[in-house]
Order: sequence, then C-alpha cells, then structure tokens
Amino acid sequence: MKVAKFGGSSVANAEQLKKVANIIQSDADRKIIVVSAPGKRNSDDIKVTDLLIDLGEAYRLGQSHEQELQRVVDRFEAILEELHLSKDVLHDIQTRVRKIFNDGNDLATKLDAIKAIGEDSLAKILSEYLVSLGMHARYVNPKEAGLILSDQPGSAQILDESFKLIHQLTKHDEIMVIPGFFGYTKEGKLVTFSRGGSDITGSIVAAGVKADLYENFTDVDSVYCVNPQIVKNPKEITSLTYKEMRELSYAGFSVFHAEALIPAFKERIPVCIKNTNNPGAKGTMIVNEKAETNQAVVGIASDTGFVSLYVSKYLMNREIGFGRRLLNILEDEGISFEHTPSGIDDLSVIIRENQLTEEKEAIVINRINKELKPDTVYIDRRLALIMIVGEGMHSFVGTAAKATKAFEEADVNLEMINQGSSEVSMMFGIKEEGVKRAVQSLYRVFFEEN
Amino acid sequence: MKVAKFGGSSVANAEQLKKVANIIQSDADRKIIVVSAPGKRNSDDIKVTDLLIDLGEAYRLGQSHEQELQRVVDRFEAILEELHLSKDVLHDIQTRVRKIFNDGNDLATKLDAIKAIGEDSLAKILSEYLVSLGMHARYVNPKEAGLILSDQPGSAQILDESFKLIHQLTKHDEIMVIPGFFGYTKEGKLVTFSRGGSDITGSIVAAGVKADLYENFTDVDSVYCVNPQIVKNPKEITSLTYKEMRELSYAGFSVFHAEALIPAFKERIPVCIKNTNNPGAKGTMIVNEKAETNQAVVGIASDTGFVSLYVSKYLMNREIGFGRRLLNILEDEGISFEHTPSGIDDLSVIIRENQLTEEKEAIVINRINKELKPDTVYIDRRLALIMIVGEGMHSFVGTAAKATKAFEEADVNLEMINQGSSEVSMMFGIKEEGVKRAVQSLYRVFFEEN
Repeated sequence: MKVAKFGGSSVANAEQLKKVANIIQSDADRKIIVVSAPGKRNSDDIKVTDLLIDLGEAYRLGQSHEQELQRVVDRFEAILEELHLSKDVLHDIQTRVRKIFNDGNDLATKLDAIKAIGEDSLAKILSEYLVSLGMHARYVNPKEAGLILSDQPGSAQILDESFKLIHQLTKHDEIMVIPGFFGYTKEGKLVTFSRGGSDITGSIVAAGVKADLYENFTDVDSVYCVNPQIVKNPKEITSLTYKEMRELSYAGFSVFHAEALIPAFKERIPVCIKNTNNPGAKGTMIVNEKAETNQAVVGIASDTGFVSLYVSKYLMNREIGFGRRLLNILEDEGISFEHTPSGIDDLSVIIRENQLTEEKEAIVINRINKELKPDTVYIDRRLALIMIVGEGMHSFVGTAAKATKAFEEADVNLEMINQGSSEVSMMFGIKEEGVKRAVQSLYRVFFEEN
Repeated sequence: MKVAKFGGSSVANAEQLKKVANIIQSDADRKIIVVSAPGKRNSDDIKVTDLLIDLGEAYRLGQSHEQELQRVVDRFEAILEELHLSKDVLHDIQTRVRKIFNDGNDLATKLDAIKAIGEDSLAKILSEYLVSLGMHARYVNPKEAGLILSDQPGSAQILDESFKLIHQLTKHDEIMVIPGFFGYTKEGKLVTFSRGGSDITGSIVAAGVKADLYENFTDVDSVYCVNPQIVKNPKEITSLTYKEMRELSYAGFSVFHAEALIPAFKERIPVCIKNTNNPGAKGTMIVNEKAETNQAVVGIASDTGFVSLYVSKYLMNREIGFGRRLLNILEDEGISFEHTPSGIDDLSVIIRENQLTEEKEAIVINRINKELKPDTVYIDRRLALIMIVGEGMHSFVGTAAKATKAFEEADVNLEMINQGSSEVSMMFGIKEEGVKRAVQSLYRVFFEEN
C-alpha cells in the first residue's frame, strides 16, 4: 500500500487534478491520498489557504468579509466547472463559514476551522472526481481516519494513540482521499498543524498504515544536489538517506520541512519525492540506509542569517561550568543556539539572527559580562552556513581537503569549520557575501570534476 | 630591570651554577634571580625535589628516613665543594628537616615545608656564590619578597595584595636571589604552588616589579615550531604572542605551563625563553603583540589522550537547553570538557581521557540516556588533537586548504575539525595512531614548502 500526498501546486486547478487522477489510476497500490489546499496557478496567484487566512483576518477585525469568502468560492467553482462536478461543495463552504463565525469557540479555534476549509473541500472534490471517472473512491475525514491532535490551535501535535486508529484504514479497499493539515482534539474540536501541515498528515498516515512507500508529489522532478538559484541545472539526487535529508533541509533545502517526515522516518517508511507534472521521472528516494557509494558528497546546502557570539577568557577551559553557564544565560533569554565551536580559551555560539534582536543582544552581552567576566565578548552578524552532506563522507580521507580547496579557489575566507560532530556533514561558516561564489565552487569540486 | 628565572637543569650542579653566575654578571639589568631546585644532571639522575618528596613520604609512612635525607645533603654538598663555599647550608637543612617533622603542623603543611627545601637551599647557595665572585648579591626569602599565598598546601594561589609588596623590591640595589616554588600564608605558614611552581614565582615577581623583561632560562635554545621528537631539527620560533603560546602549550608544548605566565601576561611583561648552556642564542620572545607577518602558522602542537563523547537526537537543535543539560551532567560528575563541536542533531564533547575513567563513563552514559533520552550516545577513545597556531592565520584564505591537504597526504582521516572559535588556531582531531605522520606532513606543508 502506498500513501500519496499531493501538494498545493499539484491541486491548484482542474488541469492539475486531472494529472493527479491519472497518477492515482495508474497504480493500484495508491490507496491513500492526502491533499493540500489549491496552491498558486501562476506566480501572481494567491494560495487558497492565504485567501482563507484573509477571510479569518477580516472577521477578526470585525470587517465585512463577503469579498474574501467569494474569492475562495470562486477558486473552487472554477475547478468544479471544468471537472463537470456538482456545485454542492460551494454551498457547504458558505454554510460552514457562517457556522464557524457564529459558534461559541474562541478566536484561535475559529481561525483554525476556517483555514482547514481549503484542504477539506479539495479532498471532497477530488474524491467526487475520482468517482466520476469510475474509481472506487471516497472522502475520509481526518476524524474518521484517526488523526487525534493536541489542543494547540495552529500548531497541534499528533497524539500517539492516533497511529493505532489510522492503521484501521488498511482494512478498507477503496481509494481514500484525506484532507491534510488538520485533525481533531479528543473533545472533537478541529485544530491544524503548523503551516505546511499537509506534509505532516501524509507522513503520519504513511506511518500509521505502515505504507510500503510514501510518495510526496510536488512540482520538481527530484531534489537537486544544490540550490538551482545558485547553480544552473544542477545534478539530481536519486537517493538520499533520512540523515542526509535532515542535514540538507536544515540549511536552505526547501523541498519540505524535515520535521514533517519524522513519523515516516520513525517507521522507516521509504519516501519518494515525485513530480505531478512529470510522473514518469524517477524522483528522489529518501531511505533509511543506502548501499555503499563511491560518492562522498550528495548535496550542498547553504543558508544565511546567522550570527556568532564570541566569548574569550584566559584559562576558560580550566573553569568547570563556563560553557554551561554561558548556554544557561542564552536559555534564560529564550535563545536557542545552533552550534558552539570552542577553542582553548574561546567559545563561539552560532545563533540564528532572528533569535537575537539588538535589544536581546544588549541584554545577553550585559549578562555575560556580569556573570562570566570574560576577557572579550562580541557579536559577528551576517554570517552564512554552508553544509556539505553525504553518508559516504567519512570514508574519504580527502573530503575536507577538497572542500577547503573549493573555498580557497572561490577566494572566500573560512570563519568557521565544524566537522566531526555529525557523521554525515561538514559545516562551514563564512561571511554572507561570499556564499554564492563558495557554493558554486563546491559544486564544481564535488560534482563536476569527478 | 630584568627578572631571570633559572630552571632545574640550569642549577643541577656546580658547573651549571657557574654558567648561571656568568649570565647574571654579564647584564647589570639582571637584578632579580628566581631559582628552581637542582634538577637532573643526566637522564638517570633524580631531581632534588623528588628526593625531598621521597623524604616526606618515608616520614609519612613512619619509616626511617636518614638515607633519603642524606641523598639531599649529598647533592648540595657536591655543589658547595666544587664552588668552594662554606657547608653551613648542609647543617641548616638537617636541623630544618628535624624541626619540620617535630612541629605541630598538619601533614600537608609539613610536606610543603620539606619540598621547599630544594629551592630555598639553592637560592642561599647561589647568592653566596655570587658574593664570593665579588657581586653585590643576597638571598631574599619569599616572605621578605612579599609572596603571600592562599592557605592551600601543594596548590597555593598568589593573593592580589602580594604584587604591591613585591614592587618594593625595586627599591633595592643589589642582586636578589629568590627561591621559587613557595611563599607564605598570611599567618606565616610556608605553602607551595603546584609542581613546576618556580615558573609561577618568576612570573609573579616579574609582574610585581613590572620588569622590562622576564627571562626564563632553560636548556633549549628556543621554542621549536614542532615537537623535536616528531620532526628532527625543526625550525626555531623567534617570536610568539601570548595567545599563540597559550594555544601551543595546551596541546603538548612542554616548555612551561601556560598558567605560570598569567601574571606576566596580565602586566604585558615580555618573556624570553633562553638557554643557560648557550646564552648567546637569541631565544624565543613571547610578547603581547607582534608585527604583521607573512607567515600564517608559527607552530604545530599535538597531544594524545582524548576521548569524544558523541550524543545524537533527532531535532536536537529545536530543544532549547539540550546542550546545556548535557554539560550540566558532566559538571555534576566533576568532568571538565575541552570542546563541544555540534552538528544539527549531534553534539560531541571532547574530554581528556584521564577525566573519564571507565566507572565514570558508565555513570555518565547512564545519566545521559535517562535524562536526555538521546537516539545515540557513545564514547570514542584514543583520540589525538593537533593544533596549528598563528596570529596571521585568518588573513590567509588558504590555511585550511593547506592543512587538510597535509592530512590527506599523510593518509590520516580527520575525525574532527574545529576552526573559527579561536582566532589564532585551528584544531584537528584524529585517531592516535596517525599523529606522528600527520604532524610531519603539516610541518612539511607549512614550514618546508614555502
């Protein structure tokens, strides 16, 4: 049994839904379908979920919201017309919105219910469409599917008991179309995951039914080994391990959130990234383990927006608890850190820039000076991190040499190298302005000069 | 005014003391002389301090200790005879030992008093010898010099008020010979620094009198850029900064303990390492700042006996406080750590092997599993750290590339690279068996191929 999840661009309009139907029809194992809300049809378009957020916002402000609602209805109406389906769903949406705005729930719960309308309506439409094509399909509400979530509107978490319930889906024989992004609390209240939550639903359902494969349909043929905005027509990755995916997605790989995959990872369900617009392409497989490779590096990722907090104190390494007390201050101030490279008498803490506003900076520096009495403390902003990732990396003596040579050839100074903590990656810190040059040079060295 | 400190090999016998006297006589600025106890005269010899420790040990065990005392007396007698000095000192030693063993002090204090006899007697002998050569010299007891220490026998610390007192020495005109290694508590009790404490005395006195130069006489012409036991006839370092010295001495540079230099560093007193056996050689200057250099790396150091504690947990970097809690456990168990390289979901802690006995290891692993619930935790033993050090390092784009190439050429795999936390060093972790090969290759790349 396969679980196939179709993202926003795959269900953006009737034309896309026809492709989706073809994909479902072409493989009898595709039994469980998870869908997003319709995404953008072109770059100027607005996603249905954003239209729904606007609708909720208008309500929150006490403004008229007829126009916002109409825009949502229009999107679905265009789809229904082209697919020659009944327009009952449109009426449902309008009734439902009215009901939500008039029920006694708190605002956060109301807004979650509004946001979920996109996925929910699309799932209904797709199942009707499949039936109209003669397939044995039906819409399955997340409550029926067994998605029981914690009572945290907008950022709900799956509860462990769900998986056993979800497994019941394997008893059914028809194609089940489940809307992504939301579920229900034990008390029966609709709550959503965080944004992008359809991926989470897909991964949870795949884990629950112990699928043979979790297919994640998107609009690219596969995952590229480097950001295509930095390197033109980069190589495709045919196979990745979970660990590699996780490290790559940490720094700028935006195929999907690594977190979304945790449930599938835990059950060791293989994941395949495929293209709705080119379903014949092989796609990228994400697996638990892969065969030995003669390739040290599978991907290069980069991300900007980091700062480094540098603290030095003579004989720091003799002071038991120094590092811990520094991290304590950060924790106290609600700052999570990324890395803590340390020297003999120096410690740097790498933090995402958005975690350290200028106000926070002043507080943190002040506390460090007062509580740790360092010789030096300063902040370096505008740093970029570049990661090269590959399970095969550690069996090649020359990987570090190759990588550092690439930076030298790009004339980019290394502010930081962090290798050895992770078994599948090597991390480099540089000034933001060198990031494009450095990534291009790394691509040349690892993917073109072989 | 210069403060000159002579180490154990420089005062091992009469022949050496003649060299010392020449050195003192040759420069009128050498006003304050700090001496160690006589060291080894040849590789089979025993240092006087070790003889004194044996003496104390015999006393502690309630055994006869005449023989141990006699060996101490014999060492000094040989010196006195060859220098044609009165033997009063020998009688003093015997009386003093008897007095110490019979006083009412606790054992630790008695043992400190015994250990201090080596430096104290040698200082008396040297001052008499200088006088016999016609110099205006005298022995100055550390109490008179102003060395007031905390009441921690065997590991006493200098008290801040000492420096003002020590500064009074500048008022005197004669050559003052001060025994190293010990001082007195406020209550007048003799206490010693930790082993190697003559270096500490020298540095403290140099800081107190705000010397123009602190000369540290030893038995090498200068500091070498790499361990001569690994690379034959390596290049000498003519000038080092405090920071460079500190990083080098952390990993296997045994010229002296970096801690000993702190008082001098704080007062920015330049330090010169010189050779008693070849005082004409330029030596190595250790300074606060040095001129711009076209040399990225000044030295390579290496040390073995490290372990790495590896902890991984999926989504670790989202868990605020994870790293802090790990360090907390180590602190709780009295383990100080050296470095904490971290990946996305991984954290390694580098610890000196002697800090982590197998018993401690079991406790620590158990606590980590219970309190942090990681996915993986394991210990890697038998690691070596190699540091390349140089203030100029960061202005050279290619330093990391050069270094990693050296490891590749030596066919040594890099377990860890840590660069960027310290501004003057780059650290590499490898398996112990590769250390010689790797250091030789680094030497070739940084010191021979230029």
